[in-house]
Amino acid sequence: MTMASLSLRFLSLTRRAFSSSSALKFNGGVSMVQGASRGIGLQFVKQLLENNDRGHVIATCRNPNSSTGLIHLKDKFADRLKILPLDLTDESSIEASALSIKDAYGHLNLLINASGILSIPQVLQPETTLNKLEKSSLMLAYEVNAVGPILVIKHMWPLLKVGGGFGTERSAAVVASLSARVGSIGDNHLGGWHSYRASKTALNQLSKTASVEFARKKDPIVSILLHPGTVDTDLSKPFQKNVPKDKLFTKEFSVQKMLSIIDNVKVHDNGKFFAWDGQEIPW
Amino acid sequence: MTMASLSLRFLSLTRRAFSSSSALKFNGGVSMVQGASRGIGLQFVKQLLENNDRGHVIATCRNPNSSTGLIHLKDKFADRLKILPLDLTDESSIEASALSIKDAYGHLNLLINASGILSIPQVLQPETTLNKLEKSSLMLAYEVNAVGPILVIKHMWPLLKVGGGFGTERSAAVVASLSARVGSIGDNHLGGWHSYRASKTALNQLSKTASVEFARKKDPIVSILLHPGTVDTDLSKPFQKNVPKDKLFTKEFSVQKMLSIIDNVKVHDNGKFFAWDGQEIPW
Repeated sequence: MTMASLSLRFLSLTRRAFSSSSALKFNGGVSMVQGASRGIGLQFVKQLLENNDRGHVIATCRNPNSSTGLIHLKDKFADRLKILPLDLTDESSIEASALSIKDAYGHLNLLINASGILSIPQVLQPETTLNKLEKSSLMLAYEVNAVGPILVIKHMWPLLKVGGGFGTERSAAVVASLSARVGSIGDNHLGGWHSYRASKTALNQLSKTASVEFARKKDPIVSILLHPGTVDTDLSKPFQKNVPKDKLFTKEFSVQKMLSIIDNVKVHDNGKFFAWDGQEIPW
Repeated sequence: MTMASLSLRFLSLTRRAFSSSSALKFNGGVSMVQGASRGIGLQFVKQLLENNDRGHVIATCRNPNSSTGLIHLKDKFADRLKILPLDLTDESSIEASALSIKDAYGHLNLLINASGILSIPQVLQPETTLNKLEKSSLMLAYEVNAVGPILVIKHMWPLLKVGGGFGTERSAAVVASLSARVGSIGDNHLGGWHSYRASKTALNQLSKTASVEFARKKDPIVSILLHPGTVDTDLSKPFQKNVPKDKLFTKEFSVQKMLSIIDNVKVHDNGKFFAWDGQEIPW
């Protein structure tokens, strides 16, 4: 047993002694999915609610009222799903969500950063050549894909520290941020998609940097990065034509695989970057 | 001989046949140093001018009039040094520099992206903990350390394509962008410095992405990333106290080592990330 896992166990036991009553209230775990209005994020919310009938889920997105998927889930899981507005580009809304979660639950056991932008008609297009780089696209992709998620981790950190693995099968809280294989520098053989690639590469570095601090402070938190594969969502729709059928996953399949990674995460996985099938991806 | 080097040779021969008169005019090479007002950039300008008495150098910085170092070099090397204003955060000034270089020289053989920000009193501080992350710092470091340099590469690309290795000892034009070991994700064991780290990591990805396109298009350009070591400059001054004396390099030493890497670069080095001593750094 390493020092880190010993310390983790100690923290976990101490916490259990001090806060069992509030924790028992949410036995089954409290999970937050950021970027939950549709696609992979929405699917995470659905599976988290369906897989564990005592699990609580906080789903955040920019405009909760326009997410029919979340509204539908709220009908079915009214008492275990909380929907909060969170705009990644507005740090005060992230802070407000953290306060609201603190008031309602007191802790978090899982944070999934599921949001991401790749293309927006007339605003952001994955670049096919260096000639097409635009400062506004580079900055926007960075703001949403890298800065937003790390600010969410910053504000949820105290709640994750309190939560740890408490009420779940895991020994630590988990932060899982959705990255992408194209964010790997070592694996970049095709070029293109500069804004998106650079933003995901930066997210990888920011998540890794946070993981180093979690480990040093012996926080009961494991931070990992996940590549979902190419999944049939609105994000990938314009780029699916060259994807072989068996490489285009359903949301259900991809999220099931990623949840299995999250559920089985170990302290020594802290800081790592996994593909949907559990294989590590080079930086 | 690989396909790439064959093609490079063919391009180079073709170019020689078509443009020998204009190229001969600048035999000795035309180099651009972006971020040349002081520190490592200024030292690159100095050594490039001193090492080769036929080499021409374009030095760019935000406010040429306030760089006493450049003014001093201009006194000594009036006919071989051109100083241009270039503000990395203003793409139109990058474009204007490219036009001005095109008019005066017609091509480039070397582009050194030497600028970089780490700390600015009251504005940007290297973060010691996730708690101190601020959106404005993350965005500013990205704008200056990642977006600016890749936009410079974008606009100088046509000039580098024309230039190739022509008039130099090299077989290709070189783009050398100053990164930093702390931009390596694999080598990140200490944490902290989130904004700076993420911006340099993103620069690594952007440079790698450009290098893939240069190779695919058989452009006579090699794009590399360089870690200068910890160099005694204004940038590192506030952070030198824990650096062992023999690990704190003079600008003269670091630039000498980096120029030796640049001078000896091969086509197969395209896309790589080297430390001052020629060792490759993991992503």
